[in-house]
Amino acid sequence: MTHANIPAGFRFAAMAAGLKKSQKPDLALIVSDQPATCAGVFTRNKVVAAPVVLTRDRLADGSCRAVLVNSGNANACTGEKGMADATRCGDLVAEQLEIPAEMVAVSSTGVIGQQLPMEKFEAAIPTLCTMLGEADGEAVARAMMTTDQFPKHSTFQADVDGVGYSLLGLAKGAGMIHPDMATMLGFILTDAAIDRGTLQEMLQRVTGTTFNAITVDRDTSTNDMVLVLANGAAGNKKISAGSPEAAVFEQGLHKVMLDLAKMIVRDGEGATKLVEVKIRGARGTADARLAAESVATSNLVKTAFFGADANWGRIIAAVGYSGADVDQGLVGISFDDVQVVEHGLWIGAEQEAMATQVLQAPEFTVTVDLGLGQGEFSYYTSDLTYDYVKINADYRT
Amino acid sequence: MTHANIPAGFRFAAMAAGLKKSQKPDLALIVSDQPATCAGVFTRNKVVAAPVVLTRDRLADGSCRAVLVNSGNANACTGEKGMADATRCGDLVAEQLEIPAEMVAVSSTGVIGQQLPMEKFEAAIPTLCTMLGEADGEAVARAMMTTDQFPKHSTFQADVDGVGYSLLGLAKGAGMIHPDMATMLGFILTDAAIDRGTLQEMLQRVTGTTFNAITVDRDTSTNDMVLVLANGAAGNKKISAGSPEAAVFEQGLHKVMLDLAKMIVRDGEGATKLVEVKIRGARGTADARLAAESVATSNLVKTAFFGADANWGRIIAAVGYSGADVDQGLVGISFDDVQVVEHGLWIGAEQEAMATQVLQAPEFTVTVDLGLGQGEFSYYTSDLTYDYVKINADYRT
Repeated sequence: MTHANIPAGFRFAAMAAGLKKSQKPDLALIVSDQPATCAGVFTRNKVVAAPVVLTRDRLADGSCRAVLVNSGNANACTGEKGMADATRCGDLVAEQLEIPAEMVAVSSTGVIGQQLPMEKFEAAIPTLCTMLGEADGEAVARAMMTTDQFPKHSTFQADVDGVGYSLLGLAKGAGMIHPDMATMLGFILTDAAIDRGTLQEMLQRVTGTTFNAITVDRDTSTNDMVLVLANGAAGNKKISAGSPEAAVFEQGLHKVMLDLAKMIVRDGEGATKLVEVKIRGARGTADARLAAESVATSNLVKTAFFGADANWGRIIAAVGYSGADVDQGLVGISFDDVQVVEHGLWIGAEQEAMATQVLQAPEFTVTVDLGLGQGEFSYYTSDLTYDYVKINADYRT
Repeated sequence: MTHANIPAGFRFAAMAAGLKKSQKPDLALIVSDQPATCAGVFTRNKVVAAPVVLTRDRLADGSCRAVLVNSGNANACTGEKGMADATRCGDLVAEQLEIPAEMVAVSSTGVIGQQLPMEKFEAAIPTLCTMLGEADGEAVARAMMTTDQFPKHSTFQADVDGVGYSLLGLAKGAGMIHPDMATMLGFILTDAAIDRGTLQEMLQRVTGTTFNAITVDRDTSTNDMVLVLANGAAGNKKISAGSPEAAVFEQGLHKVMLDLAKMIVRDGEGATKLVEVKIRGARGTADARLAAESVATSNLVKTAFFGADANWGRIIAAVGYSGADVDQGLVGISFDDVQVVEHGLWIGAEQEAMATQVLQAPEFTVTVDLGLGQGEFSYYTSDLTYDYVKINADYRT
């Protein structure tokens, strides 16, 4: 990530505050020099961590100056003290930066069910604020890591009437692997000026085909949060809904968020493969999504991917119980360009042998054509491996 | 299983017809000397095997004389030829026994996507019919086995006004493990006389809390079928809805079907533990079921069971995304009698250490009390182990 990619008007700081036993970086701060237009999507889990409740509430008016993020502790299932602590963390940032507390977002990821070590936050946050500008986006991504094997970031550039702007996406997550590790955080920063309602609609739409279209295991976390901050520092004419500029910005947002989403799957616990499960020919998009999710989350399908087994029987069964409209006599199944099933019937051993070769690759696409309509949806998944079981069974034992 | 448990008026035959490479028994016949009142439940998978389509249609009038069952080939995804072959198998039995073809049920389990080797059925079925009475229920259960490690049967006795009757349940299944293995078959035989509508309602009700309340993995098969045959040979006064006798019969049906369902979980691929996930205090039964299924099917929870990890963080997260109404401040979680979470908060290390001991056992109960109402539901699940991945990844490779 070159410095040129950083959107104008943002500064970063990151440090090790001792929240992780490993003493690795675990606390970071993102600051916009001007109030940024802010959009957010949050976990739908009914067990919600304190920082999610606080940030969802504070960003209701759509304006944000700073995002404080910590790893090592999720501040989830921590009751009233958890809410008070999350509030205090935000207040500490607000005091140091002399900005309204309502403009500070707080997010946490890490162990569930333990109270935040507030003395460490009290000591670290003032120091962190003095370090603003010393870190880059990658350093922030590193400070967000829990079970992640690598920091996740992606960028995009475009212009409005010749005025260039950029997007920088930062994320953490590797599937909700740990028992009590709260999973997925995403922050997308841009110096573009964009209408707030337009931005919120875009974020929700794009999330549906990126962060909400990936699976490592089926579990969703108490802390998931994606925020977009648009500070307008590029000085472009404000982007509004329905314009060509809005279409380009949404393409960029999709590119950055899909890059990050695929990185999360690739970094899935024990994963050795990244597989696109593409449903075509469904009655509609909703049906395509149902079928894609069913195949992408089937343990049988995921273990077959691990074993490089072109196992169409598991795939057609998963489509069959997905709830999507299916006529088994019309179903076609291919691995990349190798078709193994036509009109619901096995084509033969030769095609299956070729497909088995496709499954050796670290990345491939399974296409299921339902032959019923125009509905399409792609879901991204990993394989289910010994290491997935080992890591999750052995954790804490 | 002693002979005394066999309901009167039923005869069995079983043989090796060469459908399995192993040359083990793979073809069986159940015959009722008199037309039996018949109730059935069938897979909801939209990809449905030919024998399911045929039997569902033939039993529409609620009367049955014979059930032919084969393992080694599921006759699923076999198109029009599959339907013709299933019909021919039933016709062969009907001809030999000189009974109407409409009174013969046909069921198959085994590999998906391959046509039945009809020459073997043509040769074996006449012989099989001459062997009636030579086998017992356990022999039939053995002939139904595919990936099963042991034959599954259970019995129940009761009486109506001093007239004794019995139930014999036979099942096969070990979770839909194999790619292309079609899973679960259940046949419950009784010499009791019972009203057909009453029997069908009971079967659907009892299936909901037994065969539809277990999970090894989330996959459901193309061939699942459960039939109850009641031939009235006991000579009891016909049992009808709402009577005390009906209540006793339903208890018996539940006992037999729950025994078989638990055997299927215990026999789950790679499973080392049988766990009851019990939800209490839900707003209603539907919510309790949602939460129980969510916990019981979570890979994170199932791997934690394998690791004997009292992992309440994974459990509360699974309850949170189940769709059930949840107030995290009211949630209690216990492993057998050891409570680890109260009012949504961790009780402490001492309780968790005691819970870890509970998880060492091959069988235990996880109770989640939502504290919102009277809704209760129990789901039965296994742990997710290395062997699950190994068996499913290595199959055919």
